[in-house]
Amino acid sequence: MNDLNDLAAFLEEGWQHLRRGVADGKAPARYPTFATVSSDGLPEARTVALRHAGQAEGVVEVHTDIATPKFAALRANPHAALHVWVPRSNLQIRLTSRVTIQTGDAVQAAWDKVPAASRVSYGTAPDPGTPISDVYAYEKPARRDRFAVLHCVISHIDLVHLGAQHRRAEFRRSDAWKGQWLAP
Amino acid sequence: MNDLNDLAAFLEEGWQHLRRGVADGKAPARYPTFATVSSDGLPEARTVALRHAGQAEGVVEVHTDIATPKFAALRANPHAALHVWVPRSNLQIRLTSRVTIQTGDAVQAAWDKVPAASRVSYGTAPDPGTPISDVYAYEKPARRDRFAVLHCVISHIDLVHLGAQHRRAEFRRSDAWKGQWLAP
Repeated sequence: MNDLNDLAAFLEEGWQHLRRGVADGKAPARYPTFATVSSDGLPEARTVALRHAGQAEGVVEVHTDIATPKFAALRANPHAALHVWVPRSNLQIRLTSRVTIQTGDAVQAAWDKVPAASRVSYGTAPDPGTPISDVYAYEKPARRDRFAVLHCVISHIDLVHLGAQHRRAEFRRSDAWKGQWLAP
Repeated sequence: MNDLNDLAAFLEEGWQHLRRGVADGKAPARYPTFATVSSDGLPEARTVALRHAGQAEGVVEVHTDIATPKFAALRANPHAALHVWVPRSNLQIRLTSRVTIQTGDAVQAAWDKVPAASRVSYGTAPDPGTPISDVYAYEKPARRDRFAVLHCVISHIDLVHLGAQHRRAEFRRSDAWKGQWLAP
């Protein structure tokens, strides 16, 4: 029997979706929206692919090309908000995180696991966002030196379940993820 | 025949999805992710419902409760990034906007069109995000004085189509939405 007042079960539901996103390319949590603040102080958001979800450490990871605007944004402001909407469960998952950037030799093991077909996501020439003369006037070599792991250390998890009555809770690292119901 | 190098057709495709989002509660663009910058300078993102998409003016609108954190964020930094992922079309739509907040008598006509069942989204007591003692320890009266229209004046539209070869273009108001292909 599902206890609707059970904070731990609610948190577990959120992590289950995140883990499924890592394991299953068709799961809603595979493609979170990743929001950052540009060096001009403007909000930015784009789709990313979830590559790791570690409940014990309270960490998620995504990969990026270091030549992207999100990389520049994170250098200026190392915070990211991740947002997932799970349609069938009517669940919104929001993660607030501080991002540590890993590059170079530190990411060799992660790079080794990237399928060859996906490695071309790291190295587009000219750099992503550069104006080009024709729709396909770019190349996509695979460059490990352009590959970075964004290690997102979560400080807050906010879950909202939309139902006949909405359920919302916030879980904080500083509170050992105990959780607190919030007005939705 | 679809000309893959046709910028105007690509922009039209984006707007079609936005209009469909307004008209159809099951369309992917019905529920964009709405990213703002908090008064602390941190990125925030949440799901919103798209209520208007006006291509001629380059505007989209969403509704909100003035007691939400996103309202406070927009008072401090009136910029929002809207993000939509359209799975079947493999299309990412991103809007960069400056937000004008409309409240009070100016939104009476918009309020009149909000279905009674939806009006309870504006007025939650205690305020959204307030800690509560029990999962359902809140009420949802309908309060027009808590209702606001966020009029998002778009400055940039960034479209990315993921295919065998990716297609990416940016359209700017300052350039009369003529468009420019970008490296993806």
